[in-house]
Amino acid sequence: MPWSASNKTTSTDQIRAVYRLTGEAGEARARAEDLCIEQTVEFPRDLIHREDILDGIVGKVISLNGISDQEMEADIAFPAEVAGSELTQLLNVLFGNISLKPGIRLTNLTLPDSLLEAYQGPRFGQQGLRQLLGVPNRPLLCTALKPMGLDARELANLAGRFALGGMDMIKDDHGLADQSFCRFEDRVARCAETVREANARTGRNCLYCPNVTAPAEKLMDRAHFAKRSGAGGVMIAPGLAGFDAMRTLTDDDTLILPLLSHPAFLGALTLHTASGIAHGVLYGQINRLAGADACIFPSHGGRFSFTEAQCHDIANATAAPMGKLRTILPAPAGGMDLARVPELIRFYGNDCILLIGGDLHRHEGDLVKSCRKFVD
Amino acid sequence: MPWSASNKTTSTDQIRAVYRLTGEAGEARARAEDLCIEQTVEFPRDLIHREDILDGIVGKVISLNGISDQEMEADIAFPAEVAGSELTQLLNVLFGNISLKPGIRLTNLTLPDSLLEAYQGPRFGQQGLRQLLGVPNRPLLCTALKPMGLDARELANLAGRFALGGMDMIKDDHGLADQSFCRFEDRVARCAETVREANARTGRNCLYCPNVTAPAEKLMDRAHFAKRSGAGGVMIAPGLAGFDAMRTLTDDDTLILPLLSHPAFLGALTLHTASGIAHGVLYGQINRLAGADACIFPSHGGRFSFTEAQCHDIANATAAPMGKLRTILPAPAGGMDLARVPELIRFYGNDCILLIGGDLHRHEGDLVKSCRKFVD
Repeated sequence: MPWSASNKTTSTDQIRAVYRLTGEAGEARARAEDLCIEQTVEFPRDLIHREDILDGIVGKVISLNGISDQEMEADIAFPAEVAGSELTQLLNVLFGNISLKPGIRLTNLTLPDSLLEAYQGPRFGQQGLRQLLGVPNRPLLCTALKPMGLDARELANLAGRFALGGMDMIKDDHGLADQSFCRFEDRVARCAETVREANARTGRNCLYCPNVTAPAEKLMDRAHFAKRSGAGGVMIAPGLAGFDAMRTLTDDDTLILPLLSHPAFLGALTLHTASGIAHGVLYGQINRLAGADACIFPSHGGRFSFTEAQCHDIANATAAPMGKLRTILPAPAGGMDLARVPELIRFYGNDCILLIGGDLHRHEGDLVKSCRKFVD
Repeated sequence: MPWSASNKTTSTDQIRAVYRLTGEAGEARARAEDLCIEQTVEFPRDLIHREDILDGIVGKVISLNGISDQEMEADIAFPAEVAGSELTQLLNVLFGNISLKPGIRLTNLTLPDSLLEAYQGPRFGQQGLRQLLGVPNRPLLCTALKPMGLDARELANLAGRFALGGMDMIKDDHGLADQSFCRFEDRVARCAETVREANARTGRNCLYCPNVTAPAEKLMDRAHFAKRSGAGGVMIAPGLAGFDAMRTLTDDDTLILPLLSHPAFLGALTLHTASGIAHGVLYGQINRLAGADACIFPSHGGRFSFTEAQCHDIANATAAPMGKLRTILPAPAGGMDLARVPELIRFYGNDCILLIGGDLHRHEGDLVKSCRKFVD
């Protein structure tokens, strides 16, 4: 349980967070000090007369470095105890109130081992996923069931053809929830069944990953329904359901399914480079802390606006050391097409999940052939 | 239950959402059409050959109006069925994938009654809160227990003095979670107790509202612990815990406590006016849909950057018609001081909660007198 390790946290353990402050250089010191207050005691500094609070609670500016005329980098240390052992409060300390202030971006995050130990983290990670799929080296291949509006039977038919075609993973489109035109249980039961049948024919272990993003009290039920139905993994959008809701999935000892994290509703946090949270920290590190085995994000060159550097940042964060947390797989997506596969592999290397959705349908009537083209 | 009304949703019910698109005017039509696809089928339009999907699932551009050289307003209709009866999926339809694209801001939202009926909404709202407090007309007065680092006994002492001083509501600082230096249960039990004792002396009904923002599986336990301890309300930060987690609090028929919504971690959604979600829609309407009885936000003129217009937008959204959902109270906060009270009342009118935190402590040693000054 994530809060069980709190006793191990000593007062010397620190969360280290680097923030880029945009604005007048002369104000940087004051703004960095202000940030230390805002994210902890949120109280006028001149009214705090207690040394234990100034020393043990308020953040500290470790260094302040100019990176351009209008940009400074503040390295700040927060006592780990302030974040307790709860992801909700950790996110609050890192970016709660300052999300409301302009010109502050969290660009780098280092968590002490004592805090990391409180998190289960990804159950499978890169190695676990590869082992499950029996694919030791090449990039993993994933596609999505869409478009929304197809009924459960039609989606299941698609899923079966994708699995026969050689996909490693098949996920629900993230807009498939529990709508009247396609109920969650009907869809999941049928899709899991056709993928199982296809696996029996191919001898492979294609994983069907339904979208379990759901109302809070339904999330666990959906994930367990997925498992009982034979789904090989699940997908959740932490921006919609909460990062901590995703964490409950990885922490459930009776579930143990690979988790795909979808970026819906999170974009505002990364869109403006002078504010929010850096791509690597959010889609990489925070997803990993919350237990995702793979993080889906819109790759550069698709129909979104992430740059090559931002995509690199995510890919790096999925594999960088983070205590005992497993490394995970980046899943570039968002308007990828078959023709770009070689370029994507050059960019991301083999340790990624290539997620190609709509483009697989370009060869209507011969979906299996399209998949094979993608796989080969 | 929020999904129970889904059968009532007919195919003619529409969610109407206005988006401001920033960029070249010549591209506005294509971008608006793209948004309709992105938020629903997420599939190449030329590959959709089914009329039922084009008609019944894909969003439709109702109108497109230039508001400046570089800004267009697109009024878009989504079939209500696409959002089902789940808040997570509604947020996804409104701003899921497009949160990842630049230059798109959700500025206006109208939900059909069939969808609104699926939501319980605020249990108390403006009238309910006033009735509970016995304060029919004047602004309600609220303060926060801080600074973080005080132990439960010290915070309880403060709470008692605030209640004796005449506060209507006393909330935990939103950074008070369940840290080793101040455990949730200890704090809540002690603070509720001193506020109860103070109420017995004053004859008033000051509401202590602990912060129940917590890991997903602990949220309900904390809220019910608060109730059992005699807390008069609870506070939650939906940006940290999820809007739908807040919704579960209002939907719980055994809880029935006023809910304060705190804006931590939500700021990135409203900070840049060319993207994200408008202040009124996010802090006003979505909070209300998710059951908040009052929404805390950083007022103009404090230590945050919201403008007067943005604050007006929030205040308006708390009271504008929204099906049968109760109107709620805006709670301007964030570095307010006693001297500004008359100005704040002129701006917000009487229907608000004035939230003053740190400044009440400026008169150390005579906190009750400070409170009285605030109340009178």
